[in-house]
Amino acid sequence: MNSLLKYLLILLGLISVIINIVLICLNSNRLPKCTSQQPQGSLKVTHTDKSLVFADLTAKEYKSVRDYMWAQKDLKISHSLTAKPSENFLFLIDLALPRKADALRYLDHDAQKPPRYASVVVFYGERGYLKEYEVGPLSGQLQLIDVTQKKYNTPELPFTARTVTVGEYAQLFNLIYQTFQKLEKPLSESFGYRKGVRELLPFEGMPRGIKSGDRKTWISFFRDFSGMYIHPVGFEMLVNHESSDTANWTIDRLLYNGQYLNSIDEFMTKYNSGILKRIVHKEIPNHASLKPKNKPSGLGPQQYYLQGKRYSVKNNQVIYLDWSFAFGLSSLTGMRVFDVKFKGERIAYELSVQEAMSVYGSVTPGMILTKFLDSSIGIGRFAHELVRGVDCPYAATYVDTYRYIDTNVTQRFRNSICVFEHDIGRPLRRHFSDFFHNGYGGMANSALVIRSITAIGNYDYIWDFIFYQSGSVEARVHATGYISSSFKDEGNLHYGHQVAENVLGNIHTHFINFKVDLDILGVKNVFQTKDMVYKEVPLPWMPFEKAKIPHLVEQQIKTEKEAAMLHGTKTPRYLHIASNRTNRWGHHRSYRLQVVSFAGDHLPESESTEKSMSWARYKVAITKHKDEEQTSSSLYSQNYMWSPFVDFSKYIEDNETIVNEDLVAWVTAGFLHIPHAEDIPNTVTIGNGGGVILRPHNYFDEDPSIHSPDGVYIVPGSESNCEYNRMACLEKDQCTSTPEPFTYHGFEGVMKFD
Amino acid sequence: MNSLLKYLLILLGLISVIINIVLICLNSNRLPKCTSQQPQGSLKVTHTDKSLVFADLTAKEYKSVRDYMWAQKDLKISHSLTAKPSENFLFLIDLALPRKADALRYLDHDAQKPPRYASVVVFYGERGYLKEYEVGPLSGQLQLIDVTQKKYNTPELPFTARTVTVGEYAQLFNLIYQTFQKLEKPLSESFGYRKGVRELLPFEGMPRGIKSGDRKTWISFFRDFSGMYIHPVGFEMLVNHESSDTANWTIDRLLYNGQYLNSIDEFMTKYNSGILKRIVHKEIPNHASLKPKNKPSGLGPQQYYLQGKRYSVKNNQVIYLDWSFAFGLSSLTGMRVFDVKFKGERIAYELSVQEAMSVYGSVTPGMILTKFLDSSIGIGRFAHELVRGVDCPYAATYVDTYRYIDTNVTQRFRNSICVFEHDIGRPLRRHFSDFFHNGYGGMANSALVIRSITAIGNYDYIWDFIFYQSGSVEARVHATGYISSSFKDEGNLHYGHQVAENVLGNIHTHFINFKVDLDILGVKNVFQTKDMVYKEVPLPWMPFEKAKIPHLVEQQIKTEKEAAMLHGTKTPRYLHIASNRTNRWGHHRSYRLQVVSFAGDHLPESESTEKSMSWARYKVAITKHKDEEQTSSSLYSQNYMWSPFVDFSKYIEDNETIVNEDLVAWVTAGFLHIPHAEDIPNTVTIGNGGGVILRPHNYFDEDPSIHSPDGVYIVPGSESNCEYNRMACLEKDQCTSTPEPFTYHGFEGVMKFD
Repeated sequence: MNSLLKYLLILLGLISVIINIVLICLNSNRLPKCTSQQPQGSLKVTHTDKSLVFADLTAKEYKSVRDYMWAQKDLKISHSLTAKPSENFLFLIDLALPRKADALRYLDHDAQKPPRYASVVVFYGERGYLKEYEVGPLSGQLQLIDVTQKKYNTPELPFTARTVTVGEYAQLFNLIYQTFQKLEKPLSESFGYRKGVRELLPFEGMPRGIKSGDRKTWISFFRDFSGMYIHPVGFEMLVNHESSDTANWTIDRLLYNGQYLNSIDEFMTKYNSGILKRIVHKEIPNHASLKPKNKPSGLGPQQYYLQGKRYSVKNNQVIYLDWSFAFGLSSLTGMRVFDVKFKGERIAYELSVQEAMSVYGSVTPGMILTKFLDSSIGIGRFAHELVRGVDCPYAATYVDTYRYIDTNVTQRFRNSICVFEHDIGRPLRRHFSDFFHNGYGGMANSALVIRSITAIGNYDYIWDFIFYQSGSVEARVHATGYISSSFKDEGNLHYGHQVAENVLGNIHTHFINFKVDLDILGVKNVFQTKDMVYKEVPLPWMPFEKAKIPHLVEQQIKTEKEAAMLHGTKTPRYLHIASNRTNRWGHHRSYRLQVVSFAGDHLPESESTEKSMSWARYKVAITKHKDEEQTSSSLYSQNYMWSPFVDFSKYIEDNETIVNEDLVAWVTAGFLHIPHAEDIPNTVTIGNGGGVILRPHNYFDEDPSIHSPDGVYIVPGSESNCEYNRMACLEKDQCTSTPEPFTYHGFEGVMKFD
Repeated sequence: MNSLLKYLLILLGLISVIINIVLICLNSNRLPKCTSQQPQGSLKVTHTDKSLVFADLTAKEYKSVRDYMWAQKDLKISHSLTAKPSENFLFLIDLALPRKADALRYLDHDAQKPPRYASVVVFYGERGYLKEYEVGPLSGQLQLIDVTQKKYNTPELPFTARTVTVGEYAQLFNLIYQTFQKLEKPLSESFGYRKGVRELLPFEGMPRGIKSGDRKTWISFFRDFSGMYIHPVGFEMLVNHESSDTANWTIDRLLYNGQYLNSIDEFMTKYNSGILKRIVHKEIPNHASLKPKNKPSGLGPQQYYLQGKRYSVKNNQVIYLDWSFAFGLSSLTGMRVFDVKFKGERIAYELSVQEAMSVYGSVTPGMILTKFLDSSIGIGRFAHELVRGVDCPYAATYVDTYRYIDTNVTQRFRNSICVFEHDIGRPLRRHFSDFFHNGYGGMANSALVIRSITAIGNYDYIWDFIFYQSGSVEARVHATGYISSSFKDEGNLHYGHQVAENVLGNIHTHFINFKVDLDILGVKNVFQTKDMVYKEVPLPWMPFEKAKIPHLVEQQIKTEKEAAMLHGTKTPRYLHIASNRTNRWGHHRSYRLQVVSFAGDHLPESESTEKSMSWARYKVAITKHKDEEQTSSSLYSQNYMWSPFVDFSKYIEDNETIVNEDLVAWVTAGFLHIPHAEDIPNTVTIGNGGGVILRPHNYFDEDPSIHSPDGVYIVPGSESNCEYNRMACLEKDQCTSTPEPFTYHGFEGVMKFD
């Protein structure tokens, strides 16, 4: 080995070492990774297992209940997913909520945990009625308790009150396809129908008839496209499926291009004779497609948790800064939270979705009577997986749910609830002082959101509960997805706007009912209203002069009837659930309900179906809590609208006193939807929502957000100081590239009088 | 050199090379830096200079106008910042907006750029009147045009109609401090007053009297604390400052602990004799402090632009995806945008804040009559620097503004407007299809926000204009900052709640007026309303059966009086500015105005001050556009409330036709504020806002967001494909650490009928 090689080697070694040093330095400058996993130590409360008292059934619990029910030989329950209407079918297993008193004793006084029970619904096709049971205790030897009489004041529910099951749909579709075979010529010429190649897709109107016991459904047909809801073809059929024996089902009427026909034969005869005004099939592109018309190239702003997540989800409990609550998702009613506590004090026992209702207008039979009551189909049932980065922010926490409804096996719905902290994008509070004592104080509005989205047929509802650092909670719903539509038959333009070729977007209302069971410092509360009124008073320093001055008017409402605030009437602007206990300044500690709604008119009470949705009469109604008045609607309301087993107005009719009682507020929000071309392909959420904000009002002695870890405070001279302004240190907290350095010049050039 | 050393060197070299390779690999994996600077190529429009026609004056322009005015020797304008009321003072230089017709010719037809003029207000103390001028053209030889007669129908404005200037305040404070010297004993004993050490801070009631010409101001005093607004001490003085000669100013009345006194002497005599019920000074902690009570340790979620900003700000123009608009900030009326275009079509000529008004109730003289009209002080005037990460997201773009109001030199307000794209946190639209044609389509709601925040004394208003990808624009205001308060004198609890020791938070209204000058396909528009009504109709297939069905009712409103929608009356739910041109489906292309408001009652029209705020009678009023009806309020409304020079109701009184005319919508939003303990120290924004959403309604043939680059579309099998789902590639787009990989299981286990 010669020296040259030796020196070359040494040189190489040296260069390598230098490069090493450079690279190591480079890497040491590398910013830490943004973590979305580790909690920040910012949680002020700890998880407990007590929330499990409100937990939805586990997969194991569903299975044990199902197996138990199947094992009751006398019930003869079918094991088939597509059990026929004539068979006995285990339609639903869901959590039976504990009695409130029992739950509170457990939560607050360490009483024994209330045993868990399942609520079970069986459709007895063989016997021609429905029954509800409670099955439990889930942790022990299961037993079956018939609760039909107790819950609905009848030993058995009428068979036609039931929801249409997958099994019944299978039979309906059979009937439809049999009918289609007979109608192949007109369907093919009019709609391009080809069995198995190009189908016509069905959409049902509800209710199914005009009186109790009816099960006569107008089915409208739509093109075999994705988003079929906005592709009506102008063909509808009235199917009578009242009988549990499908052999007795009949096609009672048909509608073709605005022309009614009494039978398939009449249709064929008239069609072939040329009497019917025909529709000629035309190929059209799919205006319902959600495929972006431009190849996606965008990426909107994304949120990151620079210091990890400030909330924690364990089992069915969320803790976030000062907040804690339990959550669940009923297959029927959807999202709900329980035991909502702020700074350790319970504010609400329950906040839950109760019902989503729509009333449609149309000239076509499939829509003219249509009034959807979604909880009769199941709202929570349709909470499917949420898409990261669209349905919820990418970095959200996603939770699985399990359900057993209209099935024969427990279904897992992955990532069907999301939890995330969100920067609302405007300050929670701020003040800049330019006169006297220059200074700035404020904080960003970071709030926790828990969300599910339920796609019930055409519509998607986005359900949010939002928890703010000022102690407010918001329940909010937004609608999106497809509108319902009908063929542009003559006269239909009185019921909406045309939104695509031959397609009418039908006018409709959205009404959503929330149960707001606030407990302000315990369950004994009062209902107070506050508003303003102008009163003429003399000016104290020149009493001969008078002026009209806003006065505060406060009222305590004494009975349920007085507290039922009808739509269309003037309602006091502030509605409060209050404790008799007072805050430091002598005022009743309360939470205010601020309703956000753009609702249309409620169905007139004279209509025979109105009682099934009588909750929608009221913007807000306050009732005394009863375990028997758990929901404002029921599974049987849709198909038995004329004699509903739950008529909310009856909760009020007994006009009980609501003074120093456990109070429940039932809040209705919604909006009138007059469809327009921009509802194609999907309705956007902007402006299409409603809900209620629950706001502390003299509940505290001051705004609790003054204790938030997010406060920012700047005084002249402290502009770049991080002690009371972590924004000034954002650079150091960064786990991404370096943002621009924090600067602040707000005090330069302001007027100073001090 | 022995072999051992040689081999060691070779080994060292090899190790170095390996480490090099490892480190280079590590670095090559290093994620790119998040850039917030470079535009993404997503901008679909390009900047033009035409927006400059709406640009606020530059620093140079302000100076040239000021110098020109100062140079007019006959006007004898003082150069002093604190010019006395007896001097002539150049109060305001602001942009004089171009005539709309001229601007449109320039924007749309390449006509000559309208020459720029400044609007100039001079307070002639020497002459005892006020005048308004236009000075310009700014690019040429400046000239002075007296526009007082033209604008206000009077050759000169009364001197007492003027805003109180810095110079007048200096004199008022002089008078106050002279008075304090005489009152040193009671002030010291009652309030701990010590000249120069612990002052009492003043806050004025408005209007300043009870009739035109009055300038008698009740000044209330507050502790010398930051956030003094919620520290009333129970001492108020009525100062008569009508005369332009400050020597004639007098203290006309005093209020001490609820007791009225006619003079300083009477006060001293009665105080010393012990007749007066005294207040004894007590030290208290500052409940108004915004200093966080816990050392800030939190860091909420932060938003990042992973691919750079998708908007661009150049001069006074913003472009964002399909949007473009000009913006400005009037010293008087605040935020405004002009020439708002979506996909190249102008939707609005002007959207602007007009006025912010509050009416208070109290038993104390400083608040009993108080009705603030902020534009008379200047709304935009108080747009101070925005704090990064609190007032706007950290990564926002911040823009400086320049103003000349109540000063003698142009002032620069750094970072006083922010522009940012924000993830609203819920999808703009989405649909999940579980029946037939399984699929998912949706997109996040990323919208552009332009914001300023104005801190007018105690209150801070957050002004937002929000531009959505669906073609909607929202104008929104939220209130925060300090409430106004008064001492808890006897009887005051009829006017609010106690919120701190001896402090009453006074009941008040917030009314905000927006000008919404929509131009739907040109300036010739109509005003349409839509709503629903239940009508009984026979069911077509069984005409003996009837039902009440929602019908669409549409109306075209013909005159200004008909189109003036009073508060407290039932208003059609849909309000539209429409073109006579129709969309593809034959419907009038329109934008709908959806007002979001929680307003209290408007001041009765019988009150002598009501005419100065008559815009607040109407939720929405539609007028024919006139250049002479540029604003709904005026600089002189506050101090001449009884005979205002702009009375909005007169715009309506002539009841002009609004069919096929250039229409302007004047929208009033607001909320009733009954202060409560949680308003201490600051009112939070949650629920305390209002505004208007402008929504396309049959304006397009379909929802324009289907063309957005942000669309996401998933079908079974494409769950991990990035082609129509950039979320699935977020990992690759990352400039931070790796988020969890994208997964999607939504189609597993759903029912399939196709």
